[in-house]
Amino acid sequence: MQLGMIGLGKMGGNMARRLRRAGIEVVGYNRNTDATDSLVAECGLIAADSTEALVNLLQGPRIVWLMLPAGDVTESYVVSLSERLQPGDILVDGANSFYKDTVRRGAMLADAGIHFVDAGVSGGVWGLENGYALMVGAEATSFSQVEPLIRALAPAADRGWVHTGPVGSGHFTKMIHNGIEYGMMQAYAEGFALLKGRTDFNLDLAAIAESWRHGSVIRSWLLDLSADVLGGDQQLEDVDAFVADSGEGRWTAMEGIEQGIPTPVMSLALMARFSSQGQQDYSSKLLAMMRKQFGGHAVPSTKD
Amino acid sequence: MQLGMIGLGKMGGNMARRLRRAGIEVVGYNRNTDATDSLVAECGLIAADSTEALVNLLQGPRIVWLMLPAGDVTESYVVSLSERLQPGDILVDGANSFYKDTVRRGAMLADAGIHFVDAGVSGGVWGLENGYALMVGAEATSFSQVEPLIRALAPAADRGWVHTGPVGSGHFTKMIHNGIEYGMMQAYAEGFALLKGRTDFNLDLAAIAESWRHGSVIRSWLLDLSADVLGGDQQLEDVDAFVADSGEGRWTAMEGIEQGIPTPVMSLALMARFSSQGQQDYSSKLLAMMRKQFGGHAVPSTKD
Amino acid sequence: MQLGMIGLGKMGGNMARRLRRAGIEVVGYNRNTDATDSLVAECGLIAADSTEALVNLLQGPRIVWLMLPAGDVTESYVVSLSERLQPGDILVDGANSFYKDTVRRGAMLADAGIHFVDAGVSGGVWGLENGYALMVGAEATSFSQVEPLIRALAPAADRGWVHTGPVGSGHFTKMIHNGIEYGMMQAYAEGFALLKGRTDFNLDLAAIAESWRHGSVIRSWLLDLSADVLGGDQQLEDVDAFVADSGEGRWTAMEGIEQGIPTPVMSLALMARFSSQGQQDYSSKLLAMMRKQFGGHAVPSTKD
Amino acid sequence: MQLGMIGLGKMGGNMARRLRRAGIEVVGYNRNTDATDSLVAECGLIAADSTEALVNLLQGPRIVWLMLPAGDVTESYVVSLSERLQPGDILVDGANSFYKDTVRRGAMLADAGIHFVDAGVSGGVWGLENGYALMVGAEATSFSQVEPLIRALAPAADRGWVHTGPVGSGHFTKMIHNGIEYGMMQAYAEGFALLKGRTDFNLDLAAIAESWRHGSVIRSWLLDLSADVLGGDQQLEDVDAFVADSGEGRWTAMEGIEQGIPTPVMSLALMARFSSQGQQDYSSKLLAMMRKQFGGHAVPSTKD
Repeated sequence: MQLGMIGLGKMGGNMARRLRRAGIEVVGYNRNTDATDSLVAECGLIAADSTEALVNLLQGPRIVWLMLPAGDVTESYVVSLSERLQPGDILVDGANSFYKDTVRRGAMLADAGIHFVDAGVSGGVWGLENGYALMVGAEATSFSQVEPLIRALAPAADRGWVHTGPVGSGHFTKMIHNGIEYGMMQAYAEGFALLKGRTDFNLDLAAIAESWRHGSVIRSWLLDLSADVLGGDQQLEDVDAFVADSGEGRWTAMEGIEQGIPTPVMSLALMARFSSQGQQDYSSKLLAMMRKQFGGHAVPSTKD
Repeated sequence: MQLGMIGLGKMGGNMARRLRRAGIEVVGYNRNTDATDSLVAECGLIAADSTEALVNLLQGPRIVWLMLPAGDVTESYVVSLSERLQPGDILVDGANSFYKDTVRRGAMLADAGIHFVDAGVSGGVWGLENGYALMVGAEATSFSQVEPLIRALAPAADRGWVHTGPVGSGHFTKMIHNGIEYGMMQAYAEGFALLKGRTDFNLDLAAIAESWRHGSVIRSWLLDLSADVLGGDQQLEDVDAFVADSGEGRWTAMEGIEQGIPTPVMSLALMARFSSQGQQDYSSKLLAMMRKQFGGHAVPSTKD
Repeated sequence: MQLGMIGLGKMGGNMARRLRRAGIEVVGYNRNTDATDSLVAECGLIAADSTEALVNLLQGPRIVWLMLPAGDVTESYVVSLSERLQPGDILVDGANSFYKDTVRRGAMLADAGIHFVDAGVSGGVWGLENGYALMVGAEATSFSQVEPLIRALAPAADRGWVHTGPVGSGHFTKMIHNGIEYGMMQAYAEGFALLKGRTDFNLDLAAIAESWRHGSVIRSWLLDLSADVLGGDQQLEDVDAFVADSGEGRWTAMEGIEQGIPTPVMSLALMARFSSQGQQDYSSKLLAMMRKQFGGHAVPSTKD
Repeated sequence: MQLGMIGLGKMGGNMARRLRRAGIEVVGYNRNTDATDSLVAECGLIAADSTEALVNLLQGPRIVWLMLPAGDVTESYVVSLSERLQPGDILVDGANSFYKDTVRRGAMLADAGIHFVDAGVSGGVWGLENGYALMVGAEATSFSQVEPLIRALAPAADRGWVHTGPVGSGHFTKMIHNGIEYGMMQAYAEGFALLKGRTDFNLDLAAIAESWRHGSVIRSWLLDLSADVLGGDQQLEDVDAFVADSGEGRWTAMEGIEQGIPTPVMSLALMARFSSQGQQDYSSKLLAMMRKQFGGHAVPSTKD
């Protein structure tokens, strides 16, 4: 079994390692060659110095896996590979791409006889040891071709992965997965904020989080992470109160609107991040001024 | 017609003026005597130098109107007046008191034969000229006794006031009124923030607000205020992005929970103010740290 | 002054009437000719039996105003008129079109030398008597050409309208206007629900709404409508608890996400409508089953 | 080691079983004697036929554990036991009691020399096998006396429990725990609703849920339950779209308001349940009528 991996960063590099551990041959390309060199030395990755070389180093039908930032970067590689790959080859996109882009790209590649597979990948840097959760959109035949790779990347051969359906459905499922993640994270964050705010009880948030990890209804991997954070520092005085957000959180909220299905928790979790980014400031300023206007030192033009 | 007014601040002072304009005799008491002196000179208010003196200057059955900060201050005056007033007298609370406190105070005064009336008052400093909107909780007989005062304070004798029902219902209605106000203000604030944020259109928010005041579905007095604010300055660069909140906004949100009725708009408008006050910071910090933990430079204790 | 009006329904018909009252010549076309015939008889509208005829009945440079449903219908008329109109003619879209469509249509028409103007129109059926609020996106020269029409439609020649900026900005501003409207309506609805829910006070919602219309901070045109509704029937027992939503409410919520600006009130007002449409049912069912699962009559596969 | 357990229902009965397995002597009382008889036969529980008998069957200093519905029932037992127990005895409340009630009860019992301990218990019926998560508020000395019981009930002697601080802090922590639970459950429910709603992908929700249980960022015990539910039936056609709520969810939302800390996710998760209970209907009806009013068949009294 063999594949080409384009993008050997934090995610792609570790995925290459995990595939190598399973005895799979990995031909790798990365713009910055340091990452490639390390993997060559460490686990016998075969280095390609261009995508063209990578394609040539693989036997057909080829499997090329993109592990690049979603958006323009992934788009440009999909376009250039649509010209380099042969009919019958498979191109896999492991990024957090927007599923409508994926559907469009799948149709474009199909015109060239190339099979597109979208793999939503969850697990972060823990994936190398624990395995990656994988949500895969693909036609049945191309799925069966990539299945050995999926089994090697997953936590175990028989679990932690799912063939979700046609092209696009993998990224769609991963998008929803991340929307759920936003909601869960916000739920924990609110809870710990209230525990901290009730100062008369002087609660030890780290001890509480640790205890909840066992037997409680709210035990989860995200709680494990939270317990670890709080175990290190529960005052968080030197942490910037700024939370970034990514495409998937926004797309999920838009999906709710498009479907006409209420998603208050997912949407408000996203908006809490916007607020943390200072994006609520103008409306707050205007509210402050409106309140001041009640006091009415100046006379507003009356209604006519 | 005659009444005693305790509290001659921004609200009480102007209410005394409006009552005097209607030819009503006003005996006034204020802790700080400057306000009292001004009103004596300006509109013939009769000054009392203590609540005891105020009670003595009125003929029975007396009407004493409290226009004081809700909470402890109002509580202490209600208690002391419950001892000074006579059976058959009427005590009016014009503050934004919590309606459950009002119900309790009404029962306490009833034990002493004193009639309690709760008057929710809206209108801010504009009330002097435009009249005050009044929501009055009272037994039928005590309402008829205060009705001339209500008619004098209202925008017109026959409108802008309502006898809502029993003691407590006036403050309850005013509480809901303010909850609605929170939601409306937030709706405008969000809208103008989005207008400003779409910078490619370079919109003139003042001109838009002014135009909406005429013929549009969203015309309102709060829009009039907003147009006035934006007409003065629409960048708001020097305004602090901090919005205070008051008891009524919180009580309304709690009322929704108590009744089990969804009030997303009222509640989120309140929470937006909390965020502006920096009260979202701890949860944001924790979220930022949880995100960082995905990156996993330290190894969290794994789940067992 | 002269214009062609395509679409003589509830909005377009009344706008034609108001323009006629101002002495403006109106050539009208409507798919269903009944509306056209009425307007001919009633106010001297000149009937066209096709859009081609309408174009021919106007002298250049022509002004043609579309008052049609947003979306596919408006799109098809814009396309067909782009072929029938002459360079220098002006096409106005008065629908609640999505502003990004408007920008695209403007560019398409500009290629043919035709000027596009987007007019957001507010006021409903009350517009005939009270005038319409108008938010107009247009280049400066085309705006000056349509300005007499705008002045005739507005509540008064000098107010209730605004030239917001370039093509697209009028529909954008109208979109935000409607988002604000959603928030305000929901605020009132929540407030009246809480008034009704506190049954021990047995409040008269109609009387309260009526009183708030005068002097209160929350007086508005939407409150006038609410007072009218509640004055007729405050139990609403026979009313279906179903609230439709339209494109503008959804687009505004999406705009907030796209801009990364929190819009909790606008978004939750929209979601409340989704819930009323039964769109929350699946998530509720799943929650009910999850709760039941706590009770655990079946044994879930334990976590490994 | 010995304790008295009052309330042998689904929770109390299983807790008695788990304590017996640890070799702890359990004297039990239940209003309905069937549950008691079963436990006598099954695991050697010692039956008491009244709380008086239960107290007499225990040696001082006694530990009596209440496992009853929160609210009036628990209140009445606390009051009656405050008269039956001796100074130095310990009374434990394992219900989901409101923490302010707990603080009050603690003070009341302290006056009688009786030590109060509040134990928040999580784990549902799975607790018998997996152990219960326990959050315990108590003075240091009384905690050390009940600690062997806590260790026996917990998932393991050294984990899954926490001594949170003074009396009241255990129930407070459990309240927040449940608030987080509401938010998490709603996040999953929204996510699965969106997966189901994107019908063109025809997703298998059971397979997706099952796959997420391994390696994904959102794996949790609540996801395990969800996967079990969806594995049985993912259409949920025969399930009533009604989700009950309990005191703890409401109290947590109120706590956020009281502290002035934004809790959008917890609060909206609660309100989604209110909506499912039909409690949004009146506001929806009013909105529907307001929209109809725009159409304006009747003429609303115009604004003056």
